[in-house]
Amino acid sequence: MRDALLATLSAIVGPRWVKSRAPELVAYDADGLPGYRALPTLAVFPGTRDEVVAVVRALATAGVSFVPRGAGTGLSGGALADDIVLLGLNRLTQILRVDPVNRIAVVEPGVVNAKLSRAVAKHGLQYAPDPSSQSVCTIGGNVAENAGGPHCLKYGVTSNHVLALEVVLPDGTVTTLGSELDETPELDLRGVFIGSEGTLGIATAITLRLLRTPETVAVLLADFASMEAAGEAVRLITGAGVLPAGMEMMDNPCIQAVDDFFGVDEYPREAAAVLLIELDGHPLEVKESVEIASRLCLEAGAGAVREAWSEEARARLWKGRKSAISALGRQFPSYYLQDGVVPRTALPGVLAAIDRLSVEHGLAVANVFHAGDGNLHPLILYRASEEGVNERVKALGGAILRLCIDAGGSISGEHGVGSDKRCYMDWMFSPEDQATMQLVRRAFDPQGLANPGKLFPTPRSCGESHRRWQELKSDHPNSSLATLEVV
Amino acid sequence: MRDALLATLSAIVGPRWVKSRAPELVAYDADGLPGYRALPTLAVFPGTRDEVVAVVRALATAGVSFVPRGAGTGLSGGALADDIVLLGLNRLTQILRVDPVNRIAVVEPGVVNAKLSRAVAKHGLQYAPDPSSQSVCTIGGNVAENAGGPHCLKYGVTSNHVLALEVVLPDGTVTTLGSELDETPELDLRGVFIGSEGTLGIATAITLRLLRTPETVAVLLADFASMEAAGEAVRLITGAGVLPAGMEMMDNPCIQAVDDFFGVDEYPREAAAVLLIELDGHPLEVKESVEIASRLCLEAGAGAVREAWSEEARARLWKGRKSAISALGRQFPSYYLQDGVVPRTALPGVLAAIDRLSVEHGLAVANVFHAGDGNLHPLILYRASEEGVNERVKALGGAILRLCIDAGGSISGEHGVGSDKRCYMDWMFSPEDQATMQLVRRAFDPQGLANPGKLFPTPRSCGESHRRWQELKSDHPNSSLATLEVV
Repeated sequence: MRDALLATLSAIVGPRWVKSRAPELVAYDADGLPGYRALPTLAVFPGTRDEVVAVVRALATAGVSFVPRGAGTGLSGGALADDIVLLGLNRLTQILRVDPVNRIAVVEPGVVNAKLSRAVAKHGLQYAPDPSSQSVCTIGGNVAENAGGPHCLKYGVTSNHVLALEVVLPDGTVTTLGSELDETPELDLRGVFIGSEGTLGIATAITLRLLRTPETVAVLLADFASMEAAGEAVRLITGAGVLPAGMEMMDNPCIQAVDDFFGVDEYPREAAAVLLIELDGHPLEVKESVEIASRLCLEAGAGAVREAWSEEARARLWKGRKSAISALGRQFPSYYLQDGVVPRTALPGVLAAIDRLSVEHGLAVANVFHAGDGNLHPLILYRASEEGVNERVKALGGAILRLCIDAGGSISGEHGVGSDKRCYMDWMFSPEDQATMQLVRRAFDPQGLANPGKLFPTPRSCGESHRRWQELKSDHPNSSLATLEVV
Repeated sequence: MRDALLATLSAIVGPRWVKSRAPELVAYDADGLPGYRALPTLAVFPGTRDEVVAVVRALATAGVSFVPRGAGTGLSGGALADDIVLLGLNRLTQILRVDPVNRIAVVEPGVVNAKLSRAVAKHGLQYAPDPSSQSVCTIGGNVAENAGGPHCLKYGVTSNHVLALEVVLPDGTVTTLGSELDETPELDLRGVFIGSEGTLGIATAITLRLLRTPETVAVLLADFASMEAAGEAVRLITGAGVLPAGMEMMDNPCIQAVDDFFGVDEYPREAAAVLLIELDGHPLEVKESVEIASRLCLEAGAGAVREAWSEEARARLWKGRKSAISALGRQFPSYYLQDGVVPRTALPGVLAAIDRLSVEHGLAVANVFHAGDGNLHPLILYRASEEGVNERVKALGGAILRLCIDAGGSISGEHGVGSDKRCYMDWMFSPEDQATMQLVRRAFDPQGLANPGKLFPTPRSCGESHRRWQELKSDHPNSSLATLEVV
């Protein structure tokens, strides 16, 4: 079976682009989620759209499941292929079309996020979503995870920037979801596909909206004697109707790590928190917003507020934020980057509670996150060599998510559910809601071949959830549910 | 059967709110689509969310189909209930919550669009989507049709403003789609629901994003000696990166009708076209944009460009646009308002072709439309008393849509598919694509009870489409398709 498939796939993409030996496959046994490994049976790397179609058809004919993968930077284990085929899209790196008049770009899924913005910069345009991994992550992966980034506060997540998708459904059918026109009559299946984590098929061409590069950008850096005060500044600024392009917060452990390792002396070492606020737009509007935001930071108790207007000065203020995670990584060889959302107004209370949980679980937590939209990124720091530490990290990660839910939030802001959080889906969604999602998934993928075991709870991983599923099904013996197997 | 249902429904909502006699039901035999009539078996008007749930459960138990209806202003026949139950939502008129700090409102489906903006004006906020029927149409209907309006050019359609929906599924289950948080991990079923034209269930509480009322608004009126020149101005303005809040075009028949009936002497009577451009935002940004847009209109050949800054002066310039359709209605007792989309760049060619079609079909066509986003609204004018005129109007309407499709456009911009355009879905979507949509629909509505016969082609109405469906199903005997009946 495996040999026959190997031969078929090799015939499609060339033998060089099918990896089948363990030493080769080990390169694909993990993504950005620490502590999880899964070895694919085969890894196949089509080089063109037509090869993607042929590969997916061959897999569908053979009834073999597959996991699409971009750059493998995902943080929720969505690209792990456990004993099934890994389908790598990173050879499809063409920017197919740039239309500067209509401000549209069409790209293949393997195009690196930052490369697109560089390619359109000469037209005075940019692609807005900017995940922290943007120098390596791919647009296809961004679509799968509905990726965010610091500037999503003002500009929205990936879904707000994707107009249309050419999609290879899991049976090999090619279809188009959405349109370059803003207004079309069909059900919005484009929206369902974005963020579906590879469970509905593979996007082979992605039509994106480009935005004009803002005329003026200013960055403010404010330091605070407490996280609460920084949170209050966030509340005041958004309440005043100022919409920053981004509003990022870092706590003292981050500030110290950055200072220790990179000598970023821009951030006051003793501050409990710094807030980095980027404002962009028309020069005079930015000037007014800078004045308002500065004043409100001081009202909330900021020690000082500094302004940066030139590109170089702005980069200096951003540097600490951008290097925070690697700075912490130098102190602690292992870290788990959690991703949760809370209503902005709940930030101060939730941050204090994370502090308490950190003490209870005996694990250090640093916070560096998108404060403007309440998207927390607590970084649990540990040494992997410590016995039993993985379980403790997992327990603390779960406790933090529980906290987010209880504050009216969500188990994931921008990193996705993947393998990592599927058991937590029950905290947010009833079995009935999940059943509706599963039926939608089956509309795209009747055979259940695309990225099985992701996004939704599975019997193997999540016992309780499976029990509730079985109850639901036996309560509805005549519905489509009864025939629906969880994959 | 009908008597038993009447008794059940009367027990839920009170006898006063179930209409069963023909003279009462006639009030609900049409919506805003001319030339179509359909008498419901019963019309039921629940007064609370809980009554909606109880009514839907009773209908599901009885296996009876229903058509949700808001104000009945829809232009595609989506609210026609042909011998099934009509479920009116217009008693659910509560604004449940306004949160000015987070700029959110939660409303019941029967809240009239314009009433919401009036209610939040005191907080300096507004609800952006503004269909022309906004003084009577309801937010629930706007959600069903994913309604647009003149200001959707800058602010986007309804889907861009709905954060979450409390939905009664067709089996009576209550669920929530989306969230007040911008970022959540589930499949985006909120997006699928919006614009699904009542086929997926009933929204009983709608969480909306509010926007700050712009600081400054200016309106420009430019007149042109040809539609092509006006189209060129649209192209130049958007190409220069100016994003007007709205950009509306009217042709000479509209201008003359407005002048004849309302004495709106603002518009030069002999102009082939006028362009109405609204710019909003920060005062200095608006000032700059006004200068650029004026200059580009003159470059494109405008006779004159006038500016209006005060509320009163702006209202004077808008008056002709807002009264155009009723002015034309006074000349021609009947009209059919078509709704199609073309790429902005195709506007001049398509408008010229509509002129030719109008001559060929011997029917007058006036054009008044959202030029900025290429959303055409050709108004076919006729006298209903003329024999066979309905068929000719229908034929011309279809020819115009064919033209839109051939120019790379869409069969509906903002009025929906409903009963009127379901046979045209085949022009845009393959049977396979429609099958995926039908399967998604069945994920929400396994029994097929909600608004059957709308949005998708049906055997009765569209023979060709049905034949292709049958072929598709027989090609896939083992898929879920095989069991899927088109309703």
